[in-house]
Amino acid sequence: MDEDVSLMIPGPTFLHPRVLRAMSKPLMPHREKWFSDLFVEQGERMKKVYQTKNDLFIFSGSGTSSMDAAVSNIMRPGDKVLCLVSGKFSERFTEIVEAHGGIPVVLNFEWGSALDPEKVKEALTPDIKAVTMVHNESSTGVRNAVKPVSDIVGDSTAALIVDCISSMGGDDIRVDEWGIDLCISGSQKCLAVPPGLSFLSVSEKAWDIINKRPGYCYYLNVRKYKEDKYQAPYTQSITLTYALKEALDILFEEGLPQRIERHKRLAEITRSGLKKLGLTIFPKSEDICSRTVTAFNAPDHKSEKDIRDTLKSEYNIVIAGGQAHLKGKIMRIGHMGNCKERDIITTLACLEKALK
Amino acid sequence: MDEDVSLMIPGPTFLHPRVLRAMSKPLMPHREKWFSDLFVEQGERMKKVYQTKNDLFIFSGSGTSSMDAAVSNIMRPGDKVLCLVSGKFSERFTEIVEAHGGIPVVLNFEWGSALDPEKVKEALTPDIKAVTMVHNESSTGVRNAVKPVSDIVGDSTAALIVDCISSMGGDDIRVDEWGIDLCISGSQKCLAVPPGLSFLSVSEKAWDIINKRPGYCYYLNVRKYKEDKYQAPYTQSITLTYALKEALDILFEEGLPQRIERHKRLAEITRSGLKKLGLTIFPKSEDICSRTVTAFNAPDHKSEKDIRDTLKSEYNIVIAGGQAHLKGKIMRIGHMGNCKERDIITTLACLEKALK
Repeated sequence: MDEDVSLMIPGPTFLHPRVLRAMSKPLMPHREKWFSDLFVEQGERMKKVYQTKNDLFIFSGSGTSSMDAAVSNIMRPGDKVLCLVSGKFSERFTEIVEAHGGIPVVLNFEWGSALDPEKVKEALTPDIKAVTMVHNESSTGVRNAVKPVSDIVGDSTAALIVDCISSMGGDDIRVDEWGIDLCISGSQKCLAVPPGLSFLSVSEKAWDIINKRPGYCYYLNVRKYKEDKYQAPYTQSITLTYALKEALDILFEEGLPQRIERHKRLAEITRSGLKKLGLTIFPKSEDICSRTVTAFNAPDHKSEKDIRDTLKSEYNIVIAGGQAHLKGKIMRIGHMGNCKERDIITTLACLEKALK
Repeated sequence: MDEDVSLMIPGPTFLHPRVLRAMSKPLMPHREKWFSDLFVEQGERMKKVYQTKNDLFIFSGSGTSSMDAAVSNIMRPGDKVLCLVSGKFSERFTEIVEAHGGIPVVLNFEWGSALDPEKVKEALTPDIKAVTMVHNESSTGVRNAVKPVSDIVGDSTAALIVDCISSMGGDDIRVDEWGIDLCISGSQKCLAVPPGLSFLSVSEKAWDIINKRPGYCYYLNVRKYKEDKYQAPYTQSITLTYALKEALDILFEEGLPQRIERHKRLAEITRSGLKKLGLTIFPKSEDICSRTVTAFNAPDHKSEKDIRDTLKSEYNIVIAGGQAHLKGKIMRIGHMGNCKERDIITTLACLEKALK
C-alpha cells in the first residue's frame, strides 16, 4: 500500500501528524497515577464533546463494542427492544438484540429517508425495554433528528439508545438537551483517532434500569467501570489514549462550535460539487443529509466500482461504495475529522476525471 | 511522567523502538485488501505462537475481552462452570461466569500453590459446561501445568478454557498437544505490543458446543468472526495491528524456541538474584515458578510500598506489589517481552539499594 493514501471514506479517517507522533511514546504503567490521570481527563473532555453531564466510559474496542455495551447492559434474554431501522448500522442493533437473546421489534424505514417519529409513537408499547436508533446513518448518508424521538421515548419507561459513531466530534450532538440515555461513539470517525476506542454515556434513567436488573455482560459492563476509581477496570489501550489526548487537544484548539461548522460547510461543498458533476444525492432531501458523509447515486454510464478503482489506482484516493442492497448503486464520500476544503476539492476534481 | 521509565511489571511491557515507529504509520482503509491481508497474516502467525491448528481470532480489546469471549460464547445463563482459583486472575473467571448469569463452581487452591488435578477430577460432574484455569497466574507468580488438567477435562463434555495472557509468546504453550479448547492471550505481555488486542483460539470440541447452543454475546461472538472473510467483522485497531506485525517480526527473528529459553533463563536469574539479596520466593516451590513474572515476599524491615516508591522515584523503575490479600505482603518483577539480562541486573542492583 502507498502510505500516502487519501482516506475519503466514512472512517477510519486521516490522522494528524501530531496524533501519529503521540503514539510513538513509550508505554506508561497502566495502574499508576500517571495513566489514570490522563485517562480520567480524556473522559471528562469527551463529556464536553458529548455536551453531557452524564457518566461517560471509554472502552478498548471498536465502535460496535459500545453498541453491544448499550444493549447488553440494559436488556436480558426475552426482553423486547424497538429498533428503528433505515440502514446497515441501525440494522446492526437488531442483530445485537438477537445475539443477546432479546426480541427485536423492528420498525423499518426506507433506506435514504429519515426516521418518522409518529411511527415510533405507535410502536412504543409498555413492554419495550429500549429503543435504538442511529443519529448519522453512514450507510445512507442520512442524519436523523433525535429530539422528536426522545420526546416520545422520554415519556416511557424505555431507554433511548443512540448511535452517534459517525457524527460525534463533527456534528452538534446535545446528549443532555436531547435526552439520550445511552449515547454511543467511536474513535476513528470525526475524532480522528485510530480505531480501537469507543465511548458510551449513561443517563440517570439508564442507571435506574441497569441497577434494578443488570444485563448479562462483563467486559463491557458499565457497573464495573463505575466502581473502578481509575474508571478502567481492565488494561486500557495506553497508546490509543495518547492518540485520543492529542486529537482532543487539536479539537479544542479549533473549538467544538468551529469544528461543527466546518463539517457542515464541507458537507455543503461536497453536495454542491457533486451536483455540478451531474450527480444526484442519494438521501430523499437535502435537509436530512449527513454533515460527515455524503451518499450519492452512481452514474448510469460507468460502474461505481470502476470509478472507485480509478480513483484508487490513478489518484490514491479511497471513497466508499454502497452496503447491502445499495452495493453498486450508491457511492459515499466521507468528510470528517481532519478533512479540509482542499481534500474535497481534490476528491471532486479527481472524481470528475474518473467519471469520464 | 519521565518517558524513560523502566517497566519491570507483569505487563504492559517495554515496547521495542521498531514497534513504536510502526505505529506512526498512516491508517489503511480497513475494508481493502491491504488491511485484510495484513490482519489475516498476523492471525496465522499467532497460530504458530499458540502452536495450534485451531481457529484463532484477534479482538480489539483488553486481555479480559478474550476471557469474556471464551466464557460468553460457551455458556448460557443457568449453566455451571468449574473455576479453578488460585489467584486474582483465575478468580476473575468466577466474576465473568456470574456476570453472564452462570453458576461458578469454585475450586479454591492456596494462593502461591499450583492447581491440583486430582481435585479437578472429583469436582468435574457431568453438568459442568466448562472448566476455567490460568496457566501463568501473574498475581502469585505460579505456573500451572495444563496437561494434567486437560487429560481429565478432555474425557468429559466440558470445554477447557485456559488463560495464557501473561505467558503466551514467552513460555512454551502447546495448545493442540495440551488439548486447550479455548486459549486466551493478550498483546501487552510477552508479545510486547501495546494493550488493546487480545487473542482466542477455538478447538473443534469448543465449536461443537458453541454451534449446538451459542452463548449470548455479539461483539466478541466467535461465530461472527468465523463468518467474516476478513476475519474481522468490525473495524479493527489498525495501528495496533501494525504494532503486532512488527512485534511478531521481532519474535520470529529471535525464534520462538530461543524466546522461550530466554524467558526461562531470565526467571532463573531473577530468582537467584533475589535470594542473594536475602529475599524469599513467594510460590511454594521453585518448580512451579512462572517464567515471566517472579513473586517474592516483602522483607520484614521495610514496607514494600516504600521500596517500590524508592525504585520509582530514585531509579525510574516500576515493579509491582501484591494484589487482593497479598497487597503489602509480596512484590513482583515482570521479565517478559523484550526484557534482557541487563534489565534484570539493573533492577536487582537498584532493588539492593532500595532495600537499605
